[in-house]
Amino acid sequence: MPSSELSTKEPTPQHPQGGSARFRISTDLRYRISGPSAFIFNISVAGGAHQHLIEESITASSGGGIRECPSGEREKRHHRLSAEAGDLQVSYSATVQLSHEHCADTDLPEIPPADLPPDAIAYLYPSRYCESDKLARMAMKEFGNLQPGFSRVTGICNWIYENVEYLRGSTNPLTSAFDTATERAGVCRDFAHLGIAFCRALAIPARFVSGYAYGLEPCDFHAYFEAFLGGNWYIFDATRLAPATGFIRVGTGRDAADTSFATIYGPVEFQWMAIKVEHLDGPEPVHTTDAITMG
Amino acid sequence: MPSSELSTKEPTPQHPQGGSARFRISTDLRYRISGPSAFIFNISVAGGAHQHLIEESITASSGGGIRECPSGEREKRHHRLSAEAGDLQVSYSATVQLSHEHCADTDLPEIPPADLPPDAIAYLYPSRYCESDKLARMAMKEFGNLQPGFSRVTGICNWIYENVEYLRGSTNPLTSAFDTATERAGVCRDFAHLGIAFCRALAIPARFVSGYAYGLEPCDFHAYFEAFLGGNWYIFDATRLAPATGFIRVGTGRDAADTSFATIYGPVEFQWMAIKVEHLDGPEPVHTTDAITMG
Amino acid sequence: MPSSELSTKEPTPQHPQGGSARFRISTDLRYRISGPSAFIFNISVAGGAHQHLIEESITASSGGGIRECPSGEREKRHHRLSAEAGDLQVSYSATVQLSHEHCADTDLPEIPPADLPPDAIAYLYPSRYCESDKLARMAMKEFGNLQPGFSRVTGICNWIYENVEYLRGSTNPLTSAFDTATERAGVCRDFAHLGIAFCRALAIPARFVSGYAYGLEPCDFHAYFEAFLGGNWYIFDATRLAPATGFIRVGTGRDAADTSFATIYGPVEFQWMAIKVEHLDGPEPVHTTDAITMG
Amino acid sequence: MPSSELSTKEPTPQHPQGGSARFRISTDLRYRISGPSAFIFNISVAGGAHQHLIEESITASSGGGIRECPSGEREKRHHRLSAEAGDLQVSYSATVQLSHEHCADTDLPEIPPADLPPDAIAYLYPSRYCESDKLARMAMKEFGNLQPGFSRVTGICNWIYENVEYLRGSTNPLTSAFDTATERAGVCRDFAHLGIAFCRALAIPARFVSGYAYGLEPCDFHAYFEAFLGGNWYIFDATRLAPATGFIRVGTGRDAADTSFATIYGPVEFQWMAIKVEHLDGPEPVHTTDAITMG
Repeated sequence: MPSSELSTKEPTPQHPQGGSARFRISTDLRYRISGPSAFIFNISVAGGAHQHLIEESITASSGGGIRECPSGEREKRHHRLSAEAGDLQVSYSATVQLSHEHCADTDLPEIPPADLPPDAIAYLYPSRYCESDKLARMAMKEFGNLQPGFSRVTGICNWIYENVEYLRGSTNPLTSAFDTATERAGVCRDFAHLGIAFCRALAIPARFVSGYAYGLEPCDFHAYFEAFLGGNWYIFDATRLAPATGFIRVGTGRDAADTSFATIYGPVEFQWMAIKVEHLDGPEPVHTTDAITMG
Repeated sequence: MPSSELSTKEPTPQHPQGGSARFRISTDLRYRISGPSAFIFNISVAGGAHQHLIEESITASSGGGIRECPSGEREKRHHRLSAEAGDLQVSYSATVQLSHEHCADTDLPEIPPADLPPDAIAYLYPSRYCESDKLARMAMKEFGNLQPGFSRVTGICNWIYENVEYLRGSTNPLTSAFDTATERAGVCRDFAHLGIAFCRALAIPARFVSGYAYGLEPCDFHAYFEAFLGGNWYIFDATRLAPATGFIRVGTGRDAADTSFATIYGPVEFQWMAIKVEHLDGPEPVHTTDAITMG
Repeated sequence: MPSSELSTKEPTPQHPQGGSARFRISTDLRYRISGPSAFIFNISVAGGAHQHLIEESITASSGGGIRECPSGEREKRHHRLSAEAGDLQVSYSATVQLSHEHCADTDLPEIPPADLPPDAIAYLYPSRYCESDKLARMAMKEFGNLQPGFSRVTGICNWIYENVEYLRGSTNPLTSAFDTATERAGVCRDFAHLGIAFCRALAIPARFVSGYAYGLEPCDFHAYFEAFLGGNWYIFDATRLAPATGFIRVGTGRDAADTSFATIYGPVEFQWMAIKVEHLDGPEPVHTTDAITMG
Repeated sequence: MPSSELSTKEPTPQHPQGGSARFRISTDLRYRISGPSAFIFNISVAGGAHQHLIEESITASSGGGIRECPSGEREKRHHRLSAEAGDLQVSYSATVQLSHEHCADTDLPEIPPADLPPDAIAYLYPSRYCESDKLARMAMKEFGNLQPGFSRVTGICNWIYENVEYLRGSTNPLTSAFDTATERAGVCRDFAHLGIAFCRALAIPARFVSGYAYGLEPCDFHAYFEAFLGGNWYIFDATRLAPATGFIRVGTGRDAADTSFATIYGPVEFQWMAIKVEHLDGPEPVHTTDAITMG
């Protein structure tokens, strides 16, 4: 059984910041393949000022070798693999040091569209799962009178938390924010999509983040969103299922369409997966009402 | 130009009830036809215990004669017409005596599904424009804790009035309650569909009524809904555009699909229409918070 | 454990028609109830000229007694039950004699809308799961040039059979014909909904039938549709999963919303069900290209 | 009335390539503004190897000055403007030299997903108006058996041309490829969205282009799409309304959400617009069956 492995080792920073903590991630994906197939994985930890990848390893139990290739977009990494019929196991593990930046001043303002940096403008527009155009009146009715800025986005998350039921199996990969706004049930990606759609409908740039989360029960991939406030991207998670300071970023995009953890071409059947996130050292992540950024 | 006319004359009741009033309706519909076409009209005043048709006339300026045929359903009348290329004018006029029944006791209860009369059960199920199945959670979140019965349905209407903008041209014949729940704009039929869908989602039978309305500005066909409470059908109108005591029933059904004022087969272009509703005598309709029934 | 039972026994016709055959149906439904609940079942065999109910029995293992009540609509029967927390088993069995009428002349014509009997008109309009209004252009493009009548409806069924994949689990109770027209996968109810929507879009009345089917593998409730041609309702089934001459009618309506086998109010969890259809005597149902009616 | 103007003048190439032609574009947009508003325009001609901007000018009749700012994405330009209540006229004109590259060999192959360049991968995923995920089965049924490559994408365009009616006013800004696949009517952006969605569903990267088109009657903004074949982006236009060799690129993105010609925040009413595209010199654009690229 051929095996391909890529390992990266970087020196651990000697003096991690006061607030930084280290985590260990292990991911195991199993597939059954019945003919020539191609995979694009987006499961490896992204880089960033506040997220430091100390060590990682990715292996595939079969196929022509798993290799990283540029993703065409910043803050997202792709591994590709071609494989023949048979069983496939893809294993990823990493050690990451996180130092999310807290901002106790939660008066962060909204930036008028005319003053947004060019990079943020793409996150104002509707996308596959975040039809902000169709949610414009609803967003104005529900959130139009709230204090603009951090507290308005917090208000959006509170509304979602209170009005949408977290219910495994209630949605599928076709479900979008427009559906969830009315059907009122979903999982983490649906919560994130709805938060993003409401923000964009109010002219607040918002983007989707897929990642790992310490403290999620049961452990799984997680999804949350970021809103652009006061010149930076801040993390929001309407599910309240895990502390934002334990989020580890994998993919960033307009919505889940941009950050699928595996895009597969060919006759492939997903078998199962296992994910583990351990806290190695540093402060234990806890829920906070501070604004949190990894921007 | 051939013309066909049907007139009905019934003796005016000698002693109309204290609360009854008489109205005169005139409707004029113009079409341009470019080939053999068939029309099914549902524009004539329905019968009923509290709505008495005194006199009516329907004429078509061309075609093989407009004739009434049974509708296959109670409380709805159909006129059919076949016509060739050319201009068509269909004119309908009627004198109607209304004696809506007021119920000052607005503690009308909801009837448990297990005790509903068979006729009401069909109005519990979702229909083309009232996807109560998709709105179940939203209805529970918004209205689940309200006092059941008349006050809950009133609460639904208030919510619609406050959260949905009455905006001509904002919707089209494809728009359904699921859309309006999120898009938050519409016209009278959209308001009615949303009210119906919320009621059904809460196991309250609800049905759509198309008709004429005294006091509507500008004058047009109107649509409202009825909810089944305490053993009878009660009128609700979330648009608040005209007093319910001046409503004149034309069609009753699950939603607008059942009560289209004209179903047309063939190359026909709608030109324009004019509707007039005059108050002849008896008390002037005014808004009331009483429960109103025509059942 | 209280048990309620309703039995009906009618004399078996002495001289069944040449083409008639007898079938035995057994249905077993299991629920877990956690609080006061109400059920409306639509699982019992309907009456009709060509479907003769010889004997039936329905029992509920708990609750205040299962009782038949009129359905408010012809050709559909309702049994209601109120139950408290606990396990519930509902068992239905019946012996039925079928004598579907064959029509070897498959030149059955479409009836122009202007000449339809009143009862058929309701089946021209769009409904919850059959949005014929949104499928009008597609239907004209795909089927507008086919020979009108039986062969056009057959063409519609062939198209569905060839273009839609029968795939368990690919759809859910929210899925409608509009979805299936594009998503191209579904189960029997989706196949029926799409056939109905295409027919109505072409001004052919079409209605949904839920029932039992001899020869279905695995045995389950089945759904098919009927189109109104030449003055009668004819059976069509785009799934081709079982012979139409072995279909046993339970519910007839505009779509699945009208014929849900169980409508449940309260905290009830479906456990499992088992259905069996046996051929007792008479000719074994086989596939035929004849037009088949039970109207 | 304040006026702001930006002009760019570049030396005309002395020896334009044999196939190059020059065009003059004039665009006039009128708005009525009733309060402080912000505009992001995407109406100016993009750069590119085969599209040379010779001269351009943009003026705004009022507001604080229209200014170009980076778009955050390649091949798209943004002008921003803040304005107060009053009338606003934005005028853009440009002279452009086009030298689309023809490729007479139309055996251009599809590139397997595993071998795509990173930049192309984002164009494999579904987007707001191109729900390729929901169209996967339909695309396989209709186009799965066609010869892969240029001829398959041509087959997609032919199907759209034959099955979708070009009908002004039949769609609105909410309409997506999923709707058009079934509703079968639309305008240029709907044709492009459907082409893109089908391509992506078949693992062919496809992107949306907004622009100007010589020969379009009446003159208007145009939209078409590009598919990634044989290592380059090739132009396709299922509307067949104007020759691809006269297309002038403005915006490139995943779909119309990325390339809105004007994004407006504030109480602004669109009045009217006028667009003119003149052929100055060089070969007159004509329809061709060659593959055309501007990549």
